[in-house]
Amino acid sequence: LIDPDRFRESFERYSSIGATDREGLHRLALSEADGRVRDEFVADLEELGLSVRVDELGNVFGRRPGTEDLAPVLIGSHLDSQPKGGRYDGQLGVLSALETLRTFEDEGVETERPIEIVNWTNEEGSRFKPALTGSGAYVGAHDVETVLAETDENGTTVEEALEEIGYRGTEPVGPDEVPDSALELHVEQGPALEEADRRIGVVEGVLGMVWLEATVRGDADHAGPSPMHTRSDALVAAADVVTAVRRMAGRLDDDVVTTVGELTVEPNSVNVIPAEATFTVDVRSYDDEVVAGAVDRVEEELRAACGREGTEFELSELWRIPRTEFAPRVADAVEAAAAGSDSPAMRMTSGAGHDASYLAELTDAGMIFVPSVDGRTHNEREFTEWEDAVAGAEVFARTTRRLAGT
Amino acid sequence: LIDPDRFRESFERYSSIGATDREGLHRLALSEADGRVRDEFVADLEELGLSVRVDELGNVFGRRPGTEDLAPVLIGSHLDSQPKGGRYDGQLGVLSALETLRTFEDEGVETERPIEIVNWTNEEGSRFKPALTGSGAYVGAHDVETVLAETDENGTTVEEALEEIGYRGTEPVGPDEVPDSALELHVEQGPALEEADRRIGVVEGVLGMVWLEATVRGDADHAGPSPMHTRSDALVAAADVVTAVRRMAGRLDDDVVTTVGELTVEPNSVNVIPAEATFTVDVRSYDDEVVAGAVDRVEEELRAACGREGTEFELSELWRIPRTEFAPRVADAVEAAAAGSDSPAMRMTSGAGHDASYLAELTDAGMIFVPSVDGRTHNEREFTEWEDAVAGAEVFARTTRRLAGT
Ligand SMILES: NC(=O)NCCC(=O)O
Ligand SMILES: NC(=O)NCCC(=O)O
Repeated sequence: LIDPDRFRESFERYSSIGATDREGLHRLALSEADGRVRDEFVADLEELGLSVRVDELGNVFGRRPGTEDLAPVLIGSHLDSQPKGGRYDGQLGVLSALETLRTFEDEGVETERPIEIVNWTNEEGSRFKPALTGSGAYVGAHDVETVLAETDENGTTVEEALEEIGYRGTEPVGPDEVPDSALELHVEQGPALEEADRRIGVVEGVLGMVWLEATVRGDADHAGPSPMHTRSDALVAAADVVTAVRRMAGRLDDDVVTTVGELTVEPNSVNVIPAEATFTVDVRSYDDEVVAGAVDRVEEELRAACGREGTEFELSELWRIPRTEFAPRVADAVEAAAAGSDSPAMRMTSGAGHDASYLAELTDAGMIFVPSVDGRTHNEREFTEWEDAVAGAEVFARTTRRLAGT
Repeated sequence: LIDPDRFRESFERYSSIGATDREGLHRLALSEADGRVRDEFVADLEELGLSVRVDELGNVFGRRPGTEDLAPVLIGSHLDSQPKGGRYDGQLGVLSALETLRTFEDEGVETERPIEIVNWTNEEGSRFKPALTGSGAYVGAHDVETVLAETDENGTTVEEALEEIGYRGTEPVGPDEVPDSALELHVEQGPALEEADRRIGVVEGVLGMVWLEATVRGDADHAGPSPMHTRSDALVAAADVVTAVRRMAGRLDDDVVTTVGELTVEPNSVNVIPAEATFTVDVRSYDDEVVAGAVDRVEEELRAACGREGTEFELSELWRIPRTEFAPRVADAVEAAAAGSDSPAMRMTSGAGHDASYLAELTDAGMIFVPSVDGRTHNEREFTEWEDAVAGAEVFARTTRRLAGT
């Protein structure tokens, strides 16, 4: 059994690094705070006697040997956060994995398979686009050089940011041995477990998702002497698309979600008609064809809005990941472990992308969800009841033990 | 008669300071470039033998004595620009005033009244809100301490910016003697002169205008697992208002213009439902009651959009200036001067606010407009035919002479 007090102490300690004054977390990928929490993680791994490796993208691995010469079980999540995000997203998964290894150490549990614990670089995709770049490059879905060259809004590259915090490792990115299986615990970030009054989600799959970036170009002019009928206002065309994106979801399919999360205006001056508006569109569904249809629909809406306003547009795809189907044997192992620990479990899909989605391209992967109060996440008020976190970590430890064999 | 070559040389020299690579001007108020062009202006005034004064807000005055002990005629405009704005807006008015004094010097013209030439600080209102703060404070419509404390988006105050470029003067802000009259030349920034095929606009008044700032607050959440129907998306509510603002103008009154020029989103992350959207609304009409009605309408639209989206809002007024009616005797002087110079003139109103609007609260003020090609302004492609600029400067010199008396 895991040690809830020790688990809590680590959670508080890690949460203090990059804490916001409203009990949230602002620890953008490869920021100074991300560097400090990584140092904490590496120290904790070393205290456990694990050998620590850092790859060229800053993914941090610790290896606990098994008793047999077998492929490892990979466990972990991410320590980066959204801007003014929550303390549970990602971090809870890394700390559940750490608590699992500590429990094994305490109880003298030896597993047949080695266990690799991991903290993936840039899961969130907020400072550097797209998301899941550490795990995505690990499985070969992203090109390492492209990821290293990606810039944040200040022009800093991933490579420079890695060097700045001392996590530009030397190990090549990717497995030297394909893991036998991969397991990740995460907060649900949605309302389903809470609504169903369940503590443990057995995740069977993840929605397919696309990120688009649209740039609308109009003509800057003066807000005063320019008659309304001669204007080509980039923001007006963009705003038409924002409202269309909000409203298209319900009409397309029950499970589709569509979001404009970023929007910037040029020159952004109170008395100037906007010359340029750039915005992102995030589209998700468990049906990849529905996602493709929504992308077409966004393009139609852009064309219509730009037709009305006399503006032009460009539309590009920043990221696409098809729907994930996790391995039944991992889901079964989670379910069996939950049954053994007496925590009510339910099967479900995830609307959020996770590092485990990419790992599923490489090996048998699976996930455990614990409830998010009000489904709230990517918000400083993100919250998970501590008993739920403990129950999740316990099921996580038990599942890891099953997968690694004793 | 003015010297077109000398006028052109000054125009090119001033335009090179803060020039963009597309022949525009990026010379925000109190920026380093604004500092350099002010140095140029001061040197030109000193070369003319004028005594130069800088007040606490950085307004720069040069005084040419008259032959009688009379109140002066105030001429000039502004040297700051919009972000990536044009070379004519403001600058052409300052240089027409400079060319006028040079011509008087050359031709040995002595005027009864002294002439004060002026460059007003922060006409544009882009880096520091609101607009026309130098002239507004000069006439007592703005409080000097409030203006000095205003910050740009990086938190730099007007006072700090003034000190940085060495233009925090010591003279108190405001006239030590109320001017007899004030004259400003400006590019029209709209299409009316071009459409009517006239070279000289005799400006009779300026639209009343209001700047509003709205902040919409929703709830940040994840773009994936958050169902559409539970969302409170601040950007969606704001976008609804942007499109309503675009469309309300035509329905309210023929001359109303309504513009959203600035919009920013928090946290502005691709996979996060926007928690906050802040935007400005610029409303103008020659009828101040129509402006007030449009402001009410913006509030109604905000309330409706926030009702639909479950968001909250705050609405505040950043700036309000009622419509300006310029002095008939100045307009008559411009018209007479234009007739004398054989440039076809027409009477008109201005949709853009000008320093002369505030001066009209203090004394008899008036303006001369020259055409803007395609009415385009606040844009690097702002353009005025050079013959039109020369014709305008000539009428400006003649009008100044009339007002100052010889
Ligand atoms: N869990 C999470 O926030 N992942 C980021 C990728 C996504 O947008 O789904
Ligand atoms: N002329 C000009 O651009 N003035 C700035 C104030 C306004 O927005 O009208």
